[in-house]
Amino acid sequence: MDAQLPSAATHDQPGEVDERWSTALTAIAPNSVMVRGYHLDELMGRLSFPDAVYLLLMGELPTRTIGRMLDAILVSVIDHGVTPPSTLAARNVAASGAPLKDAVAAGILGFGPYHGGDIESCMRFLDQGLSLIRGGWTWANAAQKLVDDWAHANTAPPPGFGHRLHTQDPRAPRLFQLAMELELEGEHVRMLRALERALNERHAHFGRLLPANVDGAIAAISADLGFSYELGNAIFLISRLPGLIAHAHEERMRQEPMRRIDPKDHVYDGSRERRLPEGRK
Amino acid sequence: MDAQLPSAATHDQPGEVDERWSTALTAIAPNSVMVRGYHLDELMGRLSFPDAVYLLLMGELPTRTIGRMLDAILVSVIDHGVTPPSTLAARNVAASGAPLKDAVAAGILGFGPYHGGDIESCMRFLDQGLSLIRGGWTWANAAQKLVDDWAHANTAPPPGFGHRLHTQDPRAPRLFQLAMELELEGEHVRMLRALERALNERHAHFGRLLPANVDGAIAAISADLGFSYELGNAIFLISRLPGLIAHAHEERMRQEPMRRIDPKDHVYDGSRERRLPEGRK
Amino acid sequence: MDAQLPSAATHDQPGEVDERWSTALTAIAPNSVMVRGYHLDELMGRLSFPDAVYLLLMGELPTRTIGRMLDAILVSVIDHGVTPPSTLAARNVAASGAPLKDAVAAGILGFGPYHGGDIESCMRFLDQGLSLIRGGWTWANAAQKLVDDWAHANTAPPPGFGHRLHTQDPRAPRLFQLAMELELEGEHVRMLRALERALNERHAHFGRLLPANVDGAIAAISADLGFSYELGNAIFLISRLPGLIAHAHEERMRQEPMRRIDPKDHVYDGSRERRLPEGRK
Amino acid sequence: MDAQLPSAATHDQPGEVDERWSTALTAIAPNSVMVRGYHLDELMGRLSFPDAVYLLLMGELPTRTIGRMLDAILVSVIDHGVTPPSTLAARNVAASGAPLKDAVAAGILGFGPYHGGDIESCMRFLDQGLSLIRGGWTWANAAQKLVDDWAHANTAPPPGFGHRLHTQDPRAPRLFQLAMELELEGEHVRMLRALERALNERHAHFGRLLPANVDGAIAAISADLGFSYELGNAIFLISRLPGLIAHAHEERMRQEPMRRIDPKDHVYDGSRERRLPEGRK
Repeated sequence: MDAQLPSAATHDQPGEVDERWSTALTAIAPNSVMVRGYHLDELMGRLSFPDAVYLLLMGELPTRTIGRMLDAILVSVIDHGVTPPSTLAARNVAASGAPLKDAVAAGILGFGPYHGGDIESCMRFLDQGLSLIRGGWTWANAAQKLVDDWAHANTAPPPGFGHRLHTQDPRAPRLFQLAMELELEGEHVRMLRALERALNERHAHFGRLLPANVDGAIAAISADLGFSYELGNAIFLISRLPGLIAHAHEERMRQEPMRRIDPKDHVYDGSRERRLPEGRK
Repeated sequence: MDAQLPSAATHDQPGEVDERWSTALTAIAPNSVMVRGYHLDELMGRLSFPDAVYLLLMGELPTRTIGRMLDAILVSVIDHGVTPPSTLAARNVAASGAPLKDAVAAGILGFGPYHGGDIESCMRFLDQGLSLIRGGWTWANAAQKLVDDWAHANTAPPPGFGHRLHTQDPRAPRLFQLAMELELEGEHVRMLRALERALNERHAHFGRLLPANVDGAIAAISADLGFSYELGNAIFLISRLPGLIAHAHEERMRQEPMRRIDPKDHVYDGSRERRLPEGRK
Repeated sequence: MDAQLPSAATHDQPGEVDERWSTALTAIAPNSVMVRGYHLDELMGRLSFPDAVYLLLMGELPTRTIGRMLDAILVSVIDHGVTPPSTLAARNVAASGAPLKDAVAAGILGFGPYHGGDIESCMRFLDQGLSLIRGGWTWANAAQKLVDDWAHANTAPPPGFGHRLHTQDPRAPRLFQLAMELELEGEHVRMLRALERALNERHAHFGRLLPANVDGAIAAISADLGFSYELGNAIFLISRLPGLIAHAHEERMRQEPMRRIDPKDHVYDGSRERRLPEGRK
Repeated sequence: MDAQLPSAATHDQPGEVDERWSTALTAIAPNSVMVRGYHLDELMGRLSFPDAVYLLLMGELPTRTIGRMLDAILVSVIDHGVTPPSTLAARNVAASGAPLKDAVAAGILGFGPYHGGDIESCMRFLDQGLSLIRGGWTWANAAQKLVDDWAHANTAPPPGFGHRLHTQDPRAPRLFQLAMELELEGEHVRMLRALERALNERHAHFGRLLPANVDGAIAAISADLGFSYELGNAIFLISRLPGLIAHAHEERMRQEPMRRIDPKDHVYDGSRERRLPEGRK
């Protein structure tokens, strides 16, 4: 077919190598959309959105347990109130009357190394430990070494541990519990646990206990599921997008344009505390 | 508690009204994150991500059927290959070596009125028809009037109908089928169907048949589920984000930095066509 | 030369029209960069940056007086302190540790209809008045009609008039003075003046006097210089970009990451009030 | 005055340190805008935009020669045609019908390490050399060492040298000429020159000569003017913004929405080559 031939001769940079470039994600043809080889209309109603996310990013269908784990991870950081910088960036943009997508894009830009990006840093930190293990260290010694080196250079906690607000981030133990129940714990979770213990022994240095936070749990579990650094961070983006949307939308619906948003000066006036109905447990 | 008192006296704009502002989305307290009144750690592993999205955006748990419908909608537009402007914006940013989130933010900015934003326009178009119905018009006459008015001013199709590539967008009928099976069809779907028939009769004007496309199906169904215009568009954002991520990631993994991306000059080299295994149907 | 031939045969959408597309901005060839026909290296050191901006956007060199006017406009809104939503979006993104350009992009997204975008709205408002003039109305009657119509529908001021902080925005009269001295006042400035007078007479309706603000002055003057609506807004972007950069940079240099930024709770600790040295006047 | 008192008691995070935060950029008060201590209305018409940029970013008025140098630098990279990834990101976003500022923000996100960000990398590279000088190395030996180390690890040229299109980037020599005429050359320019010579001797390794490009010239000169790494990059942003605007605007004015933009398949149809009129030289 003509379309498969290289087209070098027709371009305006003489001598440029111009072979067709390739994509392995989605094949589009008239009346057909195939994602990783599956017809999208076949997937709809049969594959859950988290399963489809896994398929698109990783190239294959997840197992049932991996699909359930990813689903829970996506729920775990769907929102964290008004104070993260990403949320405040989104709300400030919304306050100017800009469209929703602009507020959301600004929010995504507000995922920096200190927020969101922490997942990647934690994955790299865990891999440093695992490299020691492969070099023959014990888990305890490897963790001790990482924590010592970190503490030597920093008073701030290492990525994935501690939280500026929560002394025990409630989302992390729940993710670990699910990983255990679904039999998905691997070496990254084990390293995170070892680091947690080593940090406990150094809590005087950091001025407080530093249990793993939700970023640490997502980092360890998603590394065990085979996600790369970059895609580990991407999971956070997918999960938090609805949160950014909800805040930008609420800003526009409930607040005056151009107000100056004080992140500290707010109250919660939403639904009272409630429990899932029996049928949803 | 002190924290509940207005803090007007301490701010630097004399005379400014300074009451606390309110948010109804998520309540954060030490060791507690509650979304719409539910503890996030209780939701994890029990509520699917699409259900949690619905809860966060709409304020209440969805019914089982609404949750399944939203799940299918989120799968329906998860990716559409390399050619949409949003995907190309994301790939071009990735080609500069910029971080993934920058590529993704640029992609989101590429959802303009002609792409993504079409969902909102279609919802508004359907509501124009429904307003005629409330004024006593028959469905056929209301649809006829809308199509006549549109055709008088435009040769391009109305929002939600036709597709530059697909003569029959395969995703739309599948969404309608699910809406019917889940007994979720409402007046917006009915209006879309009436418009489809009226457009058929005018196909000479537009030069081709204009069946509802996936944007039209999402617009009609999500309006029937109670989503506002702005949140209708937001569904598209949530669904497509993994697509933007996958393309930006693939660009970085497989291509040279700074290449000049020709959207037409590519081939698909991914998985061959395949079907869901029996257990997933 | 081969490169000039249409390349339709090599693309993958059969039947697609594939003519070369055109750009009139900048011609790039090996060892040559020409902007609007001028060699960039010839312009450097000979044309001021505002003159080059005009050349690039409008296609021709500005006259000396137009160049000076544009220069003053670009200075006029270079910064407005920490409270505009664009600045807060930029600072919040910077607080996450994200790169400078991410903070700046978020800031640009924070130019919505209520902020920055006001220049376009005011240009459109002025043109409504000018259209009445062309229909034979007197300046006073046209202005009266616009103000009456506006006041009928709104209690907020029309675009380009009044300021939430300044009762007399000091930047507007200075721009008008320069436009007068440079003999660049045209019908848009005249219309703005007529509207200012008509608004004075209605000040009871709005609860205060509404002199033209800097957005109004930029709108009227840049319309008189021949800028389109979209490019009128763009002038604001070019001018404010250094402000966004300065705030993002200051945030990173002087503040802790992840702080929650209260826009009201700040003090200025920069240089004391000072005057330009004699030689710069 | 009450407004100067700390407001710790009124905020909702008990025990949080809550002192007022400071900014040294711009002081806003009713009817007064002061940038770095100067009334903005006094600056307008008296200080050029590049001088105002310098004042805002660096805190003091530039000398006449520094102001002229910065002006020329801002002109030097105002546009580089349709092919840079930033420009293509902006055009693709514009093609979706999104507003101009969205296209521009996407363009800014497309300044990655390989494009725009090169200025910072080059500044850091030069500083590595200067640190050898301070350690007693000769200029030639320091340059030799940097080039050897670089060549050992890379076949791509070091930041600031060579250009994918220009064998001799015409903008670099013009900037160096101006820096010499204005007597602003400093140690960074000297180091860049030494590196250029050392690279010449290694041209076989890189397969071509690698004279300094415009990024290298901006990096060296702006470092000599005292700009930090981050602000060196920012100069590029300020300069290129009008280019992004011009391309987004042209895309919308001249092209069909939703077209698929092939960066290679274009022609220039703008003004013929021309020279500055006598009076502008």
